[in-house]
Amino acid sequence: MKIVIINSGSSSIKYQLIEMPSKEIICSGMIDRIGLETSNLSYVTKTDKIEKTIPIPNHKKGLKKIAALLMDEKVGVIKSTNEIYAVGHRVVHGGSDFSNTTIIDAEVKDRIKQLFELAPLHNPANFEGIVVAEEIFESAKQVAVFDTAFHQTLPVEAYKYAIPNFLLTENKIRVYGFHGTSHKYVSEQAKAYLEKSSKIITIHLGNGCSMAAIKDGKSIDTTLGFGPMNGLIMGTRSGDVDQSAIFYMVNSLGYTVNEVSTMLNKQSGMLGLTGFSDLRDIESNAAQGNKECQLALDMNAYRIRKYIGSYVAALGGLDAIIFTAGIGENSSFIRKLVCTDMEFFGIELDNGKNEIRSKEIREINLPQSKAKILVIPTNEEIEIANQVFELLS
Amino acid sequence: MKIVIINSGSSSIKYQLIEMPSKEIICSGMIDRIGLETSNLSYVTKTDKIEKTIPIPNHKKGLKKIAALLMDEKVGVIKSTNEIYAVGHRVVHGGSDFSNTTIIDAEVKDRIKQLFELAPLHNPANFEGIVVAEEIFESAKQVAVFDTAFHQTLPVEAYKYAIPNFLLTENKIRVYGFHGTSHKYVSEQAKAYLEKSSKIITIHLGNGCSMAAIKDGKSIDTTLGFGPMNGLIMGTRSGDVDQSAIFYMVNSLGYTVNEVSTMLNKQSGMLGLTGFSDLRDIESNAAQGNKECQLALDMNAYRIRKYIGSYVAALGGLDAIIFTAGIGENSSFIRKLVCTDMEFFGIELDNGKNEIRSKEIREINLPQSKAKILVIPTNEEIEIANQVFELLS
Repeated sequence: MKIVIINSGSSSIKYQLIEMPSKEIICSGMIDRIGLETSNLSYVTKTDKIEKTIPIPNHKKGLKKIAALLMDEKVGVIKSTNEIYAVGHRVVHGGSDFSNTTIIDAEVKDRIKQLFELAPLHNPANFEGIVVAEEIFESAKQVAVFDTAFHQTLPVEAYKYAIPNFLLTENKIRVYGFHGTSHKYVSEQAKAYLEKSSKIITIHLGNGCSMAAIKDGKSIDTTLGFGPMNGLIMGTRSGDVDQSAIFYMVNSLGYTVNEVSTMLNKQSGMLGLTGFSDLRDIESNAAQGNKECQLALDMNAYRIRKYIGSYVAALGGLDAIIFTAGIGENSSFIRKLVCTDMEFFGIELDNGKNEIRSKEIREINLPQSKAKILVIPTNEEIEIANQVFELLS
Repeated sequence: MKIVIINSGSSSIKYQLIEMPSKEIICSGMIDRIGLETSNLSYVTKTDKIEKTIPIPNHKKGLKKIAALLMDEKVGVIKSTNEIYAVGHRVVHGGSDFSNTTIIDAEVKDRIKQLFELAPLHNPANFEGIVVAEEIFESAKQVAVFDTAFHQTLPVEAYKYAIPNFLLTENKIRVYGFHGTSHKYVSEQAKAYLEKSSKIITIHLGNGCSMAAIKDGKSIDTTLGFGPMNGLIMGTRSGDVDQSAIFYMVNSLGYTVNEVSTMLNKQSGMLGLTGFSDLRDIESNAAQGNKECQLALDMNAYRIRKYIGSYVAALGGLDAIIFTAGIGENSSFIRKLVCTDMEFFGIELDNGKNEIRSKEIREINLPQSKAKILVIPTNEEIEIANQVFELLS
């Protein structure tokens, strides 16, 4: 069964063609800078690699270009779009409507549209990807996999804010959580790997960062809430910040609401603290004695440690913590900071194992550590393919 | 040494006359509704109790009235204001300038004035109390005790937000923390009571609520930050809320910034969740099956449990948790919810001891509980008197 996975952003499309159930990646690539004269297109198969810069005016032209390459005489991997059994779409926001992977029909599309307001940067782009894919892969089933779905198991005391009730019932303001596909994937990988896995904490550290408390396979709490800004310190996003500071910035410092929002979204986090947004730059500067960089790393790790403590309280114990995504998989430095002075929680890092680089799942705790510490490479595309395959077979 | 303690609010003055070092309370009382025709005045000594409703147009007239009662032929306790050695003023916000109790001079007054912007509801009233007390108790030393001072020991990774650096250096946006006088008082009481007290968590649950992580007597983290709104769920204040929700309420729901601020300050918390702001009403309704009330109590306790976990991570262990202030001292119901399923942290409540009502410090954990659970009545006035006495003697 051939499945195309599409992750459509406001000016980009990432795609993979995956054979299921073997999970063989037949082809992958992306287009970015859609709408500019200098769009980049990449297309990678086992034998060929194409990268070019051409003008791609919109998502439809982009996806047509991809389909043409898939069927190309020289570099193609299929003869007709009819070979594609399903298209799996990453959709960022499923609101409270979608707690599962869903076959897309007119009603589902309507509901995704109604959620534009909750995810104005992401859902319209995801929607556009669906509309275009329906035209191009017209015989394929279209399936939506929601970033929020995994967190729909949060109990009400975890998803509700202590604000007037009508803001939840009428305006749907609550914790949704994100990166659900990643948290689900690595927690299931952990379950397969571990003997004890009923109480685990997943730590997704990428461009965006979030943690989840997962009890018996279900997400019971997570650090990102209504939007993509709070919780952990991210590349350019502040994570948790006292709301009083926002009112002060508007009322006393004279910023507009949108200026504050932009500042907290795009000029804060590691960038705001150090001037760098790439963690590798921050680590190498810290190693050379840059105190701002060292402090930013310490703050980052301190916040993760505090959330570990708080999720141990939510779980009533701890079997394992999981590091994943770009930073979680690759920064031994951050992992070490996070695991420092955490013996109370049964977290004891093996410094040697922590330094080993690998693309495989690996255990980096000391033998006597009561809680396991795992590094698990995330793979949201494979997880989407899994979910589409499970739903359709 | 006779010390007058003054806690001056925007329309109220609370006062006590305390003999030090015996800590004998010679007289206490308050005036509220200052500026109205129907101000209430109370004045209580060991032998007399006066309560009356009279118009008190401003703080100066109010404090003069109090001074007159103190020297009254029938109910007075002193012959002249010269007998007052010092006046201790509660000042809410000391910014980063004041980490200790301070004798008030012209420069200190200037600096308190400069902090009006950070505490617009409180510091101007505290300042007014100082100016008036200088006139009325002209021979007394005037001393300021700051609510924020105890938290000035927070390490930078705990007090700094992950926002652009200039907002800290130029605009002083950081965690200040509040209820410092209470956290300090009960943590010192705990230290005197306990064998092991190097890692304690104080839980101040009153009209406002906050927690502090206290290591070797020093505050290293606290839930209230830049202003008095975040952290725990309070009577009418939301505590932690995702900043995205604020931007959404302004940009998509059409509220003004001030409406949102008012909603999160005055219409949220337990009131927003239940319609009641008095915890006793909420508990009795929950007991009668009101699900909103039960949920609000569960949410409240869940958040406290999570902060306990996070502060155990900050402390690297736990010797004791301390409940204090109106709710913390009196609600066995909340204490029980907070201590449920916390065995991982060595917290095991004795349900019987938890129900005993007392005005004394008491231990309510099971004998085998690794962490002690204490209830300690707070006394901010005595703590202020202590600090004034220590400074001046």
